[in-house]
Amino acid sequence: MFSEQKIPNWLFKRAFLTPDRNALMFYNEKWTFNQLKEEAERTAKKLHYRGILKGDRVAVLLNNHAKMVIILHALQLLGCEAVLLNIRLQEQELAFQIKDSEARHLISENELLIEKKEIQLHIPNVILSIEQLEETAEKDFEYVTEFHTDDICTIMYTSGTTGFPKGVLQTYGNHWSSAIGNVLNLGLQENDAWLTAVPLFHISGFSILVRSVLYGIPVVLYDKFDEARINEDLISGKATIMSVVTTMLQRLVNNLGDRSYHPSLRCFLLGGGPAPVSLLEICKSKGIPVFQSYGMTETSSQIVTLSPEDSLEKIGSAGKPLFFSQVKIVTEEGLAEPQEIGEIVVKGPNVTKGYYKREEANEKSFSKDGWFYTGDVGYLDEEGFLFVIDRRSDLIISGGENIYPAEIENVILSHPGILEAAVVGISDEKWGQVPYAFFVEKNGWHVSELELQKLCEEQLAKYKVPKRWIKTSELPKTASNKVMRRRLRELVEKNEWGN
Amino acid sequence: MFSEQKIPNWLFKRAFLTPDRNALMFYNEKWTFNQLKEEAERTAKKLHYRGILKGDRVAVLLNNHAKMVIILHALQLLGCEAVLLNIRLQEQELAFQIKDSEARHLISENELLIEKKEIQLHIPNVILSIEQLEETAEKDFEYVTEFHTDDICTIMYTSGTTGFPKGVLQTYGNHWSSAIGNVLNLGLQENDAWLTAVPLFHISGFSILVRSVLYGIPVVLYDKFDEARINEDLISGKATIMSVVTTMLQRLVNNLGDRSYHPSLRCFLLGGGPAPVSLLEICKSKGIPVFQSYGMTETSSQIVTLSPEDSLEKIGSAGKPLFFSQVKIVTEEGLAEPQEIGEIVVKGPNVTKGYYKREEANEKSFSKDGWFYTGDVGYLDEEGFLFVIDRRSDLIISGGENIYPAEIENVILSHPGILEAAVVGISDEKWGQVPYAFFVEKNGWHVSELELQKLCEEQLAKYKVPKRWIKTSELPKTASNKVMRRRLRELVEKNEWGN
Repeated sequence: MFSEQKIPNWLFKRAFLTPDRNALMFYNEKWTFNQLKEEAERTAKKLHYRGILKGDRVAVLLNNHAKMVIILHALQLLGCEAVLLNIRLQEQELAFQIKDSEARHLISENELLIEKKEIQLHIPNVILSIEQLEETAEKDFEYVTEFHTDDICTIMYTSGTTGFPKGVLQTYGNHWSSAIGNVLNLGLQENDAWLTAVPLFHISGFSILVRSVLYGIPVVLYDKFDEARINEDLISGKATIMSVVTTMLQRLVNNLGDRSYHPSLRCFLLGGGPAPVSLLEICKSKGIPVFQSYGMTETSSQIVTLSPEDSLEKIGSAGKPLFFSQVKIVTEEGLAEPQEIGEIVVKGPNVTKGYYKREEANEKSFSKDGWFYTGDVGYLDEEGFLFVIDRRSDLIISGGENIYPAEIENVILSHPGILEAAVVGISDEKWGQVPYAFFVEKNGWHVSELELQKLCEEQLAKYKVPKRWIKTSELPKTASNKVMRRRLRELVEKNEWGN
Repeated sequence: MFSEQKIPNWLFKRAFLTPDRNALMFYNEKWTFNQLKEEAERTAKKLHYRGILKGDRVAVLLNNHAKMVIILHALQLLGCEAVLLNIRLQEQELAFQIKDSEARHLISENELLIEKKEIQLHIPNVILSIEQLEETAEKDFEYVTEFHTDDICTIMYTSGTTGFPKGVLQTYGNHWSSAIGNVLNLGLQENDAWLTAVPLFHISGFSILVRSVLYGIPVVLYDKFDEARINEDLISGKATIMSVVTTMLQRLVNNLGDRSYHPSLRCFLLGGGPAPVSLLEICKSKGIPVFQSYGMTETSSQIVTLSPEDSLEKIGSAGKPLFFSQVKIVTEEGLAEPQEIGEIVVKGPNVTKGYYKREEANEKSFSKDGWFYTGDVGYLDEEGFLFVIDRRSDLIISGGENIYPAEIENVILSHPGILEAAVVGISDEKWGQVPYAFFVEKNGWHVSELELQKLCEEQLAKYKVPKRWIKTSELPKTASNKVMRRRLRELVEKNEWGN
């Protein structure tokens, strides 16, 4: 694996090693690894029949369902690169990514293709719906039985808040080493099953597919996030690990009420940005095992995760880098001291080799010796634990002072009647930017702006207290359930929300 | 790790990630990973003070104790290659390996150095006992913080039954990928602890040290195999995994009697040659979790292991190759069919890059595309499970018929009064070779040759029935508790045992 830089086709190898173990569960359907392999082979032969060839780049626009899992594996058997498209994007956003990635084919489904004429113009070759695929004949070809670690497996576009989205190149080696780094941290038990309600087109979801075949454990797949149904599964012991972002965890905990999770549930792997400490404290008090982590599309999922033994003591920290990865904090003066806030810079075999066709961005983000400048803000403590303050793009600069939204949101969320909160920086003639706060009340609560204002004034420097309070019934979110701060800013600036 | 082919210094990384977890237990002493790192650093500075430099090759002749673990890690901090010497060898055998390996230094202890003047002549530089080391000053130097996967970590001599021993080169990448392959098969639990009563100078023991730092689990170390003490530890739950060879397992099971192991004991990893099915059946009936495996010095420990779910159904099989490894069976006609017996040929990132300075042996044993011809004999069943028949060097050829000793031993061991048995081929004018059987009775039993003769005649082709029966109180064994068949043959041929 080192000298040759090859790894076996992971689905084939897993199906050979443990053919009868469960690989995938979707509602009441179930596939063993052997069945998954056979389905992937069949599907690959159909794709090949329709003209998809080894080395082709194929855009994928699909809902989170079992067929998507099968198609993603089929593309690996064919030796195709998959461009994973976010189903919540607008048509022109999709068209941009398809054009930019130079995908030759598109695999989608009728529901998602309807009235999207424009994107079809950008596909030079085959456009195929899963409905058409059903009726397609099969054509034999030579399966890819070994992956080269430097070969591209997937391309995912980052939602970047400024500029055009960039295609992140993820190799087989990136995905593979991410999964290995994870197992050395989280361990691996015979009864493990990974609940997947995050999108497969995001790295949070796709990475679970890789872990599943490497570890020999099932993916318990959901087509959408449904806290009531998921809680039932977690109470009955259907899964032992679940990937979540803050909002999902919040909704699960609210829905859980006085019930308890099955003792075999051993990990909520929490990603997608810093979590409010109040939520982590609630989980701690209820004995809910939350492992904070830090990662992004560019690091092929988590690169920093809290170990089991630190999950309670180091609450609020994202943990330490995985076994084969490194993290440092850089300021304008160079390497930061412990506790000093700066840019989070990472390195490791799970880090992308770059953005597709973005020389300038690559030069800006990657150092010669392999360090990737994330643009995110945080610090390391004396023991080397990472604390993520915020995503740099969310940084609010007001009167020359840096304001990190998460700090303010933590205060607002400490109010017992608040379900969700988001703080964004809004342009201001006097200060450059000022913070505005959006909040969602819990059912049955009525929280006044004055209460929140006082709460913040008590706990925060004056310049950090939101200049405006906007009550709303829900926050706009990305497909991976991160709050879309940019959208909030746009709404205010377009005067759609009482400025 | 792929593009750069570097891995972090595993002890440093582990001590950084989980400094307070237990790393090593030896009798009543205990070291956390942080303490182990500090001890290794201190020891490395002492070795450096005595003149041991980066890149030096260092022979190590030590008993199984905590100091040996520390010294092995210290050598890695220094960037030295360790030549691991078997403490049971005679002086001239040691001298051969030291000369052959071109080791510059020797680290040993007074007890083992006494009256071994000859080997000291072959060491050009430093000869150091651990007793001297205690009193040595420290000298700072730059620790090796990253390992190159192609660099040699250890050299171990194979006990090869014919010709001179050969030094097997084991790289950091070999050890690393062996440990990763193992975790994907056995899993990893928070409470794991690996009981180590096999020698650290053998790959069976050394590989546990690597797993310990990669997984973050303790080594529970023994200086010698003591079934009573080990059973107490396993009954009280002090370890969850133990590496054993057949004889050790046999003695443990006999000693266990009606008692039961702690429920947290989840794996006896059984290596070192095919195990008698009767023993495996006893373990099965007692609920003792035995995972058969197959490996050798050249594969940096196991390369084939039985998965948990197959351990009962496929009793007698060594299992399937680890995730990144491959196995095939080759006969003179080429690739064998399922069930067809032939030579076991393996490939994978854990396989040695070759024997030190043995061009001829390397040419014979390694194919151009990376396959290693083990010389062992076995077959694959229809599902790809490996069954190891015997080590080729033990093959008895009698009147043109192949006789595999293990087959005969299995029959003898099925007699309830037999503790151990070994069959070897003895030169014979008429048949070329004929099988002779050695056997050890259980306490309180008297088993007649006639009984055994009849048992074999009932179950085996005539040419396989031993021509002579030799009762003995114990079988000669290697340090890793494998029966020394060559020694048995020599004894017969020198007429020391009633020929």
